[in-house]
Amino acid sequence: MTFSLGPNQYGKAGVRLVTVDGGVVTDLTIASALSGDLEATHYTGDNSAVLATDTQKNTMYAFAREFGVGSPEEFGLRLGRHFVTSQKAISTARLTVEQHRWERIPVDGEPAPHSFVRSGTETRRARVVVSEDSAAVSSGLGGLTVMNTTDSEFHGFPRDRYTTLPETSDRILATSVDAWWDHTGTDLDWEAVYDQARGALLTAFASTYSYSLQQTLLSMGSLLLSACPSVGEVRLSLPNKHHNLVDLSPFGLDNPNRVYVAPTEPFGLIQGTVRRDGATYSEGPALW
Amino acid sequence: MTFSLGPNQYGKAGVRLVTVDGGVVTDLTIASALSGDLEATHYTGDNSAVLATDTQKNTMYAFAREFGVGSPEEFGLRLGRHFVTSQKAISTARLTVEQHRWERIPVDGEPAPHSFVRSGTETRRARVVVSEDSAAVSSGLGGLTVMNTTDSEFHGFPRDRYTTLPETSDRILATSVDAWWDHTGTDLDWEAVYDQARGALLTAFASTYSYSLQQTLLSMGSLLLSACPSVGEVRLSLPNKHHNLVDLSPFGLDNPNRVYVAPTEPFGLIQGTVRRDGATYSEGPALW
Amino acid sequence: MTFSLGPNQYGKAGVRLVTVDGGVVTDLTIASALSGDLEATHYTGDNSAVLATDTQKNTMYAFAREFGVGSPEEFGLRLGRHFVTSQKAISTARLTVEQHRWERIPVDGEPAPHSFVRSGTETRRARVVVSEDSAAVSSGLGGLTVMNTTDSEFHGFPRDRYTTLPETSDRILATSVDAWWDHTGTDLDWEAVYDQARGALLTAFASTYSYSLQQTLLSMGSLLLSACPSVGEVRLSLPNKHHNLVDLSPFGLDNPNRVYVAPTEPFGLIQGTVRRDGATYSEGPALW
Amino acid sequence: MTFSLGPNQYGKAGVRLVTVDGGVVTDLTIASALSGDLEATHYTGDNSAVLATDTQKNTMYAFAREFGVGSPEEFGLRLGRHFVTSQKAISTARLTVEQHRWERIPVDGEPAPHSFVRSGTETRRARVVVSEDSAAVSSGLGGLTVMNTTDSEFHGFPRDRYTTLPETSDRILATSVDAWWDHTGTDLDWEAVYDQARGALLTAFASTYSYSLQQTLLSMGSLLLSACPSVGEVRLSLPNKHHNLVDLSPFGLDNPNRVYVAPTEPFGLIQGTVRRDGATYSEGPALW
Repeated sequence: MTFSLGPNQYGKAGVRLVTVDGGVVTDLTIASALSGDLEATHYTGDNSAVLATDTQKNTMYAFAREFGVGSPEEFGLRLGRHFVTSQKAISTARLTVEQHRWERIPVDGEPAPHSFVRSGTETRRARVVVSEDSAAVSSGLGGLTVMNTTDSEFHGFPRDRYTTLPETSDRILATSVDAWWDHTGTDLDWEAVYDQARGALLTAFASTYSYSLQQTLLSMGSLLLSACPSVGEVRLSLPNKHHNLVDLSPFGLDNPNRVYVAPTEPFGLIQGTVRRDGATYSEGPALW
Repeated sequence: MTFSLGPNQYGKAGVRLVTVDGGVVTDLTIASALSGDLEATHYTGDNSAVLATDTQKNTMYAFAREFGVGSPEEFGLRLGRHFVTSQKAISTARLTVEQHRWERIPVDGEPAPHSFVRSGTETRRARVVVSEDSAAVSSGLGGLTVMNTTDSEFHGFPRDRYTTLPETSDRILATSVDAWWDHTGTDLDWEAVYDQARGALLTAFASTYSYSLQQTLLSMGSLLLSACPSVGEVRLSLPNKHHNLVDLSPFGLDNPNRVYVAPTEPFGLIQGTVRRDGATYSEGPALW
Repeated sequence: MTFSLGPNQYGKAGVRLVTVDGGVVTDLTIASALSGDLEATHYTGDNSAVLATDTQKNTMYAFAREFGVGSPEEFGLRLGRHFVTSQKAISTARLTVEQHRWERIPVDGEPAPHSFVRSGTETRRARVVVSEDSAAVSSGLGGLTVMNTTDSEFHGFPRDRYTTLPETSDRILATSVDAWWDHTGTDLDWEAVYDQARGALLTAFASTYSYSLQQTLLSMGSLLLSACPSVGEVRLSLPNKHHNLVDLSPFGLDNPNRVYVAPTEPFGLIQGTVRRDGATYSEGPALW
Repeated sequence: MTFSLGPNQYGKAGVRLVTVDGGVVTDLTIASALSGDLEATHYTGDNSAVLATDTQKNTMYAFAREFGVGSPEEFGLRLGRHFVTSQKAISTARLTVEQHRWERIPVDGEPAPHSFVRSGTETRRARVVVSEDSAAVSSGLGGLTVMNTTDSEFHGFPRDRYTTLPETSDRILATSVDAWWDHTGTDLDWEAVYDQARGALLTAFASTYSYSLQQTLLSMGSLLLSACPSVGEVRLSLPNKHHNLVDLSPFGLDNPNRVYVAPTEPFGLIQGTVRRDGATYSEGPALW
């Protein structure tokens, strides 16, 4: 009985790259993953096709100086195209770029010229897949934590032997948005599209009167597709960060939606895809 | 232009369940994910098909008492079959079960009767996918951190404009093993198979004279397939946890492979699949 | 030879409490620690003086409903006074309250009425120590990550056999502020004082032309004391989050302060205290 | 009104140092903190007394080659003495050394010659404080997670308006031990003393029939002092990692101490000191 090598890839991850250019800070964590004709190194340790992961890292730093970083999508495309065209053995390059947010510090009501504070808890993301004759770009974000204090109900669910959850017509709905959306093109105004996508997610979350987190998810994905014509599909992973009303009756107190416990775990996990009808696009990164 | 719901699932994650039975501690973190005919809740908030994630959690605790937990694979299968058969709308259930290791505390050279210490850094994992007429089981582990202090070389890789890495004929090779392996059956001695699989990964890592981490990966996957006839495919994700020799020459000191710096990042990331030729099996959880 | 019980305390930590009141969200993580005449439980297991930590937690939730939370300092004082006055054995109560930031989500340029997003990476903190006849309040923050891209130099340091660091007249200076400041009173406008203190830390960081992070630390502490007359002492712990200029010369490229690597570790760690001359106040929480 | 610099220190933290010597792996994370006559850098940015934190890091790597590492206590003493004696401005050096555990991988029942696996979840620690004419050594550990499945009761505690916790005569007792112990000397067989101390903590935890975690704490500290004559004081911080019996009665099931939920938070936190009567020793690192 024999065994064979199946799908494989390799690269450098956790590359921390910060650029300062014209007063703009760009703060990235980058991962590369190359695949292609890599059987030799697996079977015999012949590394003649293995561009070292250290070289991949060096290329990221050098390109940041030679070409600037621009948006994470652009930077990923440039790196991916380089690896695929310069290395005969490499047929596909996947680049994942995370961007950390910084805002100018306000001093006396004015933004300081060269001083910044990390803002927001979320990370912007881009993932590009470059092959010899194609490229696909996805954008996304992680860690965008949001809460509606009302306008959320949950009832009408089945009750079996193991069901104890009471129905509710007014609950807190909170989640931490983890999302990827796939673009149908590779040459877009990436900053503008990101801002529209993020804005749509926030607006839909805030504006949807919700009977289930699934309904909110569909609303978020649909508004993002409406706002961003270049996007063919959105995938959302939404933990239901439960806020449980505390039973204060043992202490002779009522609790009209005032005091909650917010446990770390367990949490619901609602995951779904929303697609533009008729769109054609390459497959982006999986969320589950 | 209209949008449609694509693939989706929902469940409860982060369920912390500990059982004590006959002096045996079983410590699990469980996640469920159900899919099927769930359009109504997304489009209208009609939850009549949505078994509450709270109910899913209750079922885990109740089943632990009614049937015992047994191995994580067994417990996942039992839960998955229950959700698929009891809920008309649910066609597929995915259960992911992580098991945390405890060993008896030795007192005066003897294992204490009811006292335990958390041992090892790795987590055992099982993932089952139950559909109406089939079931697939994968097992795995994460966080198994290993190091070879010698018998690892890396040279012969291409040198382009961005390559500065020197070749080496003696380096530390260290990684943290993250692995899934898919079984061709659903009725196995899960404890025995897990021990064989884990043992094969450790043995292959320790015994392979390595010219690349890719070569070590293929060796690890192959030995696991040899040791476990029930396994059809192994997927391994191996961060190359670099141990860089420190340049002590500025201090007038040599460094004949004695003193290393072990940075958290960046790290190489080597990912690959090893398959038994001719095996047929369902698809297990992706590692990348 | 005999052994004795020395200083000790006990309480409940990690209490996650969220309140919604009049459209305002307050999101806290609370820890209590009680001390006093607790020898019996240690020596014999007699728990007649041990108010259960579960009761301490219940009291936090009940007080949130009975009295509202208000500022973290106020809530800590109220809880501390309750434990000390109601429990004969308890002579001192320490309450640590962390507050997580939420801002209203903007929709069409207007803040949404009941929708919030987690903002900023920092946590506000309060620590109160209540004894039978006194109370002391400290405030603070953690995780406020800031960066100056210029106006920072570092040179003139001693050069011994182990020194290789070049001098620099222009570097990035970045840190994550961890701070406590001790108040001389217990009845202040806590919200206003917190905003002034946080603003002073940011302003001093952005405005100080720095020859060492120590100099920046003294400036930050001094401006906080100037801005907040109620504060007698500030303690700051400032990791020097190094941004190292990448040597691009192997690739034929210069690097005029454009491209940096920002490693997680190692990091400098600068810790210091700034005191108002002549102030008298109780001792607050240690940072090191 | 004027402000003054109070207590301060600075150094390098997060230094990851691994040595391989004679087949032995030593894996450390080190932090240095120097204090002394450091006013100039704070007030004027004059760095003539500031040994760069980069130099402190270099010294750690160079000393590892020149002198070997030995035990963490020894390595800390050697580094501390160097900084205090070689730098006129520095009067005190604090070194904190964490050691990560590795064990040989067994292959065919024999330990492999140069292959290791990370074992256990705990970290060994040493902290030394070296001044011009004295030195103090503390040892400790963190993250040692232990559980007794029975032989633990908790009752007889006061019941006030906010008390709902039922009394129990049989519960799980679990904690993650965080401990420091201060030595009365500086020239000991550090490996032997560490093994005795760790063994005493485990044995006392496993052997104590407990009516409160406080009682277990006193027992653990006392046995450590008995086992280690060089130790003058032990400080223990013991989170009570609650394992709550799940109420299965809604499902028609009993639960005779079989099925538990183990939430991450909240947790009890029991902290205490045990002292050898008449011992004199310097003050070690605080745990709270």
